[in-house]
Amino acid sequence: MPPVPSVEPGLVSAKPSLDALFRLLGPDLARVNALIVERMHSPIALIPQLAGHIVAAGGKRLRPLLTLAAARLCGYRGDRHIALAAAVEFIHTATLLHDDVVDASELRRGRDTANAVWGNKPAVLVGDFLFARSFELMVEDGSLRILEILSRAAAVIAEGEVAQLVTANDTTTTEAAYLAVIEAKTAALFAAASRIGAVVAERPEAEERALERFGRNLGIAYQLIDDMLDFSAEVGELGKSVGDDFRDGKLTLPVLIAIARGDPEERAFWRRTLEDGEQRADDLERAIRLVERRGALAETSARARRYAAEAAVALAEFPDGPLRRALVETTVFAVERGF
Amino acid sequence: MPPVPSVEPGLVSAKPSLDALFRLLGPDLARVNALIVERMHSPIALIPQLAGHIVAAGGKRLRPLLTLAAARLCGYRGDRHIALAAAVEFIHTATLLHDDVVDASELRRGRDTANAVWGNKPAVLVGDFLFARSFELMVEDGSLRILEILSRAAAVIAEGEVAQLVTANDTTTTEAAYLAVIEAKTAALFAAASRIGAVVAERPEAEERALERFGRNLGIAYQLIDDMLDFSAEVGELGKSVGDDFRDGKLTLPVLIAIARGDPEERAFWRRTLEDGEQRADDLERAIRLVERRGALAETSARARRYAAEAAVALAEFPDGPLRRALVETTVFAVERGF
Repeated sequence: MPPVPSVEPGLVSAKPSLDALFRLLGPDLARVNALIVERMHSPIALIPQLAGHIVAAGGKRLRPLLTLAAARLCGYRGDRHIALAAAVEFIHTATLLHDDVVDASELRRGRDTANAVWGNKPAVLVGDFLFARSFELMVEDGSLRILEILSRAAAVIAEGEVAQLVTANDTTTTEAAYLAVIEAKTAALFAAASRIGAVVAERPEAEERALERFGRNLGIAYQLIDDMLDFSAEVGELGKSVGDDFRDGKLTLPVLIAIARGDPEERAFWRRTLEDGEQRADDLERAIRLVERRGALAETSARARRYAAEAAVALAEFPDGPLRRALVETTVFAVERGF
Repeated sequence: MPPVPSVEPGLVSAKPSLDALFRLLGPDLARVNALIVERMHSPIALIPQLAGHIVAAGGKRLRPLLTLAAARLCGYRGDRHIALAAAVEFIHTATLLHDDVVDASELRRGRDTANAVWGNKPAVLVGDFLFARSFELMVEDGSLRILEILSRAAAVIAEGEVAQLVTANDTTTTEAAYLAVIEAKTAALFAAASRIGAVVAERPEAEERALERFGRNLGIAYQLIDDMLDFSAEVGELGKSVGDDFRDGKLTLPVLIAIARGDPEERAFWRRTLEDGEQRADDLERAIRLVERRGALAETSARARRYAAEAAVALAEFPDGPLRRALVETTVFAVERGF
């Protein structure tokens, strides 16, 4: 797949990665990780155990990296962004723990979910703990503006998660409804995580808005690819979890496109498997074949690349440099990644 | 049962109630209720539906009443306490929704739980939404001190809920461990709800601490009685839910006392039913008989009355008047109530 149009050749290596971002922000991220471990401590041993399972499960730390990168991109030289990045990651972790309730997905990042290991209720309560801790970190930081941005994002995320439940199993879901869901459940936190970098650096509103736009578009692109990878045969061959969305009856963009382009027999297949929830042993394989045959994966990828390009364009507000280039590469990585 | 020692005769009617509190704070509470309805709105219809189910389910609104009463007791004449009381109730409602996950308790306040009606996952996500809304309300209020008190309380509540899970099914749980659990899961919010009344009224630290002590002791008393009522044959006759804690294997004070005072056969009964979770049709009846016979209900009630008296004593920091008297009556109601 070609790189996004806004990226000049040569800026992006053959295989886009987060390496440059990690290299530039490594010391900051190490401090974030230390703070995360410190602040998820509790005399109730189950809390750090369970939280540690998911926090340490090898996530990409993409959201806290956005906060770190945005602050540095805005020329910030202090260290408030460390605690705020940890707060962002805690919100994300709480969301993961709550998102796994009921869900039958047994693998997240290749390991058992905390819910599968400890049960739903402990996972929910530890999520609540992390959510509360996140606000404690923000309160210690003391910026009401940042508290406003992240509490609003938290409400929008919850709305998006509920909206996703409501649209599940409904094969008449529109693309607009789907986009509203992923904008809320995923892109809102990417946007907020990026935006607060400008707030902490006390930069003008224009830079806040540019970072918000960067984060939001990156988040949408990222989620589109996530939804695409859930139907990827290659991912399955890597031993990673595939078909979670299909089993949950989620109407993601690949499916919506496949339904729109499908013949009556295919539509009947989608209705049976997603609406009626009647799934047989080889239905996932057939679903994967159908989204491929109907060009739904390529189309989803193309849409994601457009959002990623929008994210890159938003970075034009900031001067060129290693960090901006690393963030541009992040927009490419978000859509070219295979996991 | 006699009124608590610190209450002068004549201040408390024969049958203690929250009536005086409701009468004095009625207009304030009406505004809180209107704000609750307004702020649980969302374009995602399931959110107000599900939240409305639990918010409207006829709870006593005790926690927001504490915020209203504390602010007025401190001479506060503004209206910031309205939004803060709504924030407190949202935290409580979120906790109820999350506490009902997995739990088999089918009745809360005489109605089906939201979890039973809509499923665990929507209940969890709507709880998250209300929790985020709570912080939005606090951020709009703009007091970092109040944000600090309530975010800390939220973390402590979650710790208490997890600690309760950890002690469940463990018949060697100590009374100290049990008290730590209820102090965290219940009393922390009572304490914070009361304390912020002094903060909003900009009163000295001594009044903050007095209200904190009032709320904490009231909360412990309230929870002790809750735990006692779960073994009350009379409550069962009212058609209310009884035995939820027993079925969940919770080691509440009535049970801990009954175990400590029980003979070997009784201890074997508690181990089988609570530790091994082997419960038969008539075990709840036997459990109720045992806690009664061993004086565990009377002892729990006596302990609760001591905490309630401590709560009343803390009010000595404030001048006498109708509101202080209503709060003293609240401490009596908390331990004399039959529901």
